[in-house]
Amino acid sequence: MTLAADLPRLLSAMLGDRFSQSMAEREAHAGTEAHHQPMPPEAVARPVSTEEVSQIVNLCAFYGTPIVAYGNGSSLEGNASAAEGGLCIDMTLMNRVLDVRPADLDCTVEAGVTREALNEHLRETGLFFPVDPGANATLGGMTATRASGTTAVRYGTMADNVINLTVVMPDGEILRTARRARKSSAGYDLTHLFTGSEGTLGIITEVTLRLHGRPEAVRSAVCTFPDPLSASEAASVAIQIGLPLARIEYLDAGCIRAVNAFSNLEEAEADTLFLEFHGSEAGVGEQVEMFQQIAEDHGGSDFRWAAKEEDRSRLWAARHSAYTATVRQRPGARGWASDVCVPISALPGCIEHAKALLADCPVPASIMGHVGDGNFHVVFSLDPESAEEQEAVARINDAMVERALECDGTCTGEHGVGLGKRKYMEREHGPALKLMRRIKAAIDPDDLMNPQKIFPPERNGNA
Amino acid sequence: MTLAADLPRLLSAMLGDRFSQSMAEREAHAGTEAHHQPMPPEAVARPVSTEEVSQIVNLCAFYGTPIVAYGNGSSLEGNASAAEGGLCIDMTLMNRVLDVRPADLDCTVEAGVTREALNEHLRETGLFFPVDPGANATLGGMTATRASGTTAVRYGTMADNVINLTVVMPDGEILRTARRARKSSAGYDLTHLFTGSEGTLGIITEVTLRLHGRPEAVRSAVCTFPDPLSASEAASVAIQIGLPLARIEYLDAGCIRAVNAFSNLEEAEADTLFLEFHGSEAGVGEQVEMFQQIAEDHGGSDFRWAAKEEDRSRLWAARHSAYTATVRQRPGARGWASDVCVPISALPGCIEHAKALLADCPVPASIMGHVGDGNFHVVFSLDPESAEEQEAVARINDAMVERALECDGTCTGEHGVGLGKRKYMEREHGPALKLMRRIKAAIDPDDLMNPQKIFPPERNGNA
Repeated sequence: MTLAADLPRLLSAMLGDRFSQSMAEREAHAGTEAHHQPMPPEAVARPVSTEEVSQIVNLCAFYGTPIVAYGNGSSLEGNASAAEGGLCIDMTLMNRVLDVRPADLDCTVEAGVTREALNEHLRETGLFFPVDPGANATLGGMTATRASGTTAVRYGTMADNVINLTVVMPDGEILRTARRARKSSAGYDLTHLFTGSEGTLGIITEVTLRLHGRPEAVRSAVCTFPDPLSASEAASVAIQIGLPLARIEYLDAGCIRAVNAFSNLEEAEADTLFLEFHGSEAGVGEQVEMFQQIAEDHGGSDFRWAAKEEDRSRLWAARHSAYTATVRQRPGARGWASDVCVPISALPGCIEHAKALLADCPVPASIMGHVGDGNFHVVFSLDPESAEEQEAVARINDAMVERALECDGTCTGEHGVGLGKRKYMEREHGPALKLMRRIKAAIDPDDLMNPQKIFPPERNGNA
Repeated sequence: MTLAADLPRLLSAMLGDRFSQSMAEREAHAGTEAHHQPMPPEAVARPVSTEEVSQIVNLCAFYGTPIVAYGNGSSLEGNASAAEGGLCIDMTLMNRVLDVRPADLDCTVEAGVTREALNEHLRETGLFFPVDPGANATLGGMTATRASGTTAVRYGTMADNVINLTVVMPDGEILRTARRARKSSAGYDLTHLFTGSEGTLGIITEVTLRLHGRPEAVRSAVCTFPDPLSASEAASVAIQIGLPLARIEYLDAGCIRAVNAFSNLEEAEADTLFLEFHGSEAGVGEQVEMFQQIAEDHGGSDFRWAAKEEDRSRLWAARHSAYTATVRQRPGARGWASDVCVPISALPGCIEHAKALLADCPVPASIMGHVGDGNFHVVFSLDPESAEEQEAVARINDAMVERALECDGTCTGEHGVGLGKRKYMEREHGPALKLMRRIKAAIDPDDLMNPQKIFPPERNGNA
């Protein structure tokens, strides 16, 4: 659809050069990360305040114009593409840290603040915000997709770290989802309803977040294993005995090979776990020892650990470039990152299963996992022009999701549904999907907020 | 209202003697805990399965009969009273632990299992379920009110420990709110929506819960302080520096006096903190030392700690009987437990403020707090026949809530809204209350699920 005739004029008058219909701006907001089709909006608005967002949403509601909120564009399932055109609200100018309250271990930020910018801001306080999805995403975007990443095993996901949200509703009303107390039993939990709603219920403009004290001591470790099963079983056991790991990441042998080539490293091309331990000096020492024992019990070898920051960075270098190294194995390739999460006892079997699926895969692929949560990805390096490759990878993705659902797991641990995971929603949720639709219809009856996302097209009389 | 003519006959045929209209059964399900008016249902049904709950709800939907789910009746704000009569669904026969999965650190229970029964069931596994609201509540009831209690500071509230729920919807449909993976980004967070919904959106019939490994070592400690401010400031500082306390409870001097009389103890009648530390042997030792230092810095004295279970029980004896000892200071009295929660930095001021309010209180009262969360109660001992006492306590309660809201806190940290906190909902939530109403109307359009709870009566044109 195209914008109603008056809307560009009104938005221009309101926003000046913070409103644009240029092709370059539209294409820069098409949600082109990963393998999904770029879908540019008709125009881009860059508000600087919650009130401005409210005014913009009000106008769009009047004209029946679809709205997509946009952060840093790092989502992986087409979550922020403009599936029905309309207006993209780019939140990145709302990048102020509004308040940091060290005594309450919390802060309030505008939605466009990135996690790296927040941590930079916090540097002198002794506090940090732990959720780390890899990309330098905006905190609003991370909230909208219920992101997590490498530290969720210890510090939780966005769902565990958002205290309240300021939201602009589809009719332009501004509300706050909760107060700032650490817990409350005062009515429905709106904070968690909006966290993970992917912009389909309203626009998140401010986020109040839990902060955590920087650990007194940090240790990193790396250990190789003879096969994926041994590595993932070692991870499961560590979780089961309650080791308070701060991070535990798995890369398969193929991924290490890609990383060695990309980053000029010489890591052993083996299934590898990367770990980080947070605690007191004595505590992290204990943890390293305990994990080393678990690793040995599972055939682990070449166990190395480090305490100093530069040594830790070196140990973890392979993990940091894993995604890029995998995708760039072929010139001009594009990434496709699958994402499933299962109960931890099912993880070793699911990783084995994924490994077997990759035996027939026509494109380079790496397995990488936040294995402490039961969450793992296969990252594929795709020729964007090849329908055949897309189909082959889609088949593997289907099989991985089906296996995860058979294990009572989920089709997405952290990337969100966007467009890519819609087709699994009915299988995953059954009648609960109808309830989600009912909530969507009650809150956004005209379906203007990020339309087509999360929900598969309705079949006659079905969910 | 009275039950439609056919309904008792049909429910009798379905449930046999698990359906009753006797006055004794009705009065036993009137929600008489605490100060609220008893409101008996017209009849009581005792289902034994989710399918039976579904059939019962179906019948009630057909006849337009209100439904209130009932656990152990320990809620404190009239949450489970039958405000419009109708049918009480007593969940206590649904008391099976369905599955314990030590490798996944989770379990699934029917809603009528109590927390003590679950922990008894888990005794041999090395695992436990930590949420402890004091009363031996059912896990379904604890989920419905988003309960927490003494251990929330370390292990979180019900919101943090429920993985998924089986729910019977107002039309009788059975759904599960999520899968069993530890995290998911697959659509709206229905689990958190039902957690804390107080039976107003559907009936929770099964709960999948996180379990935790029993700590290797436990230490308990007690310390007295010269005044409420010193005690609550010591608690705040301990949280702010990140001490991983398992419990930190405050009792004021008056409460200790009541407990001494009730339990024949000889504790110093002073503002007192009760603590529990969980961790490794070395870790808990460190924690005890660190807290002792904090206590000394805040004028604490008579610091005692214990490691053995019987010694720990003795140290904590005063805390365990605090509520009962306070209420029973007068024969025939009834309890009224206020409940507010504020950002931790605001806690010392709020407790001081409560203390000042109590100077004019015509009835005995104790302050007791889960101070690590910023959550505290004043428990009053009321003559149930005295309207004057009710009014005086209501005024103090109002003032405490107003102060909590001024500090960006909540009118209820853990007891829920029920009937008692409805009048604060508009002040606390503003436009968000309208959104809660819209969700309620979308899910339960005939308003049959625990009617009148959570939401204040609507004023013309207002939330």
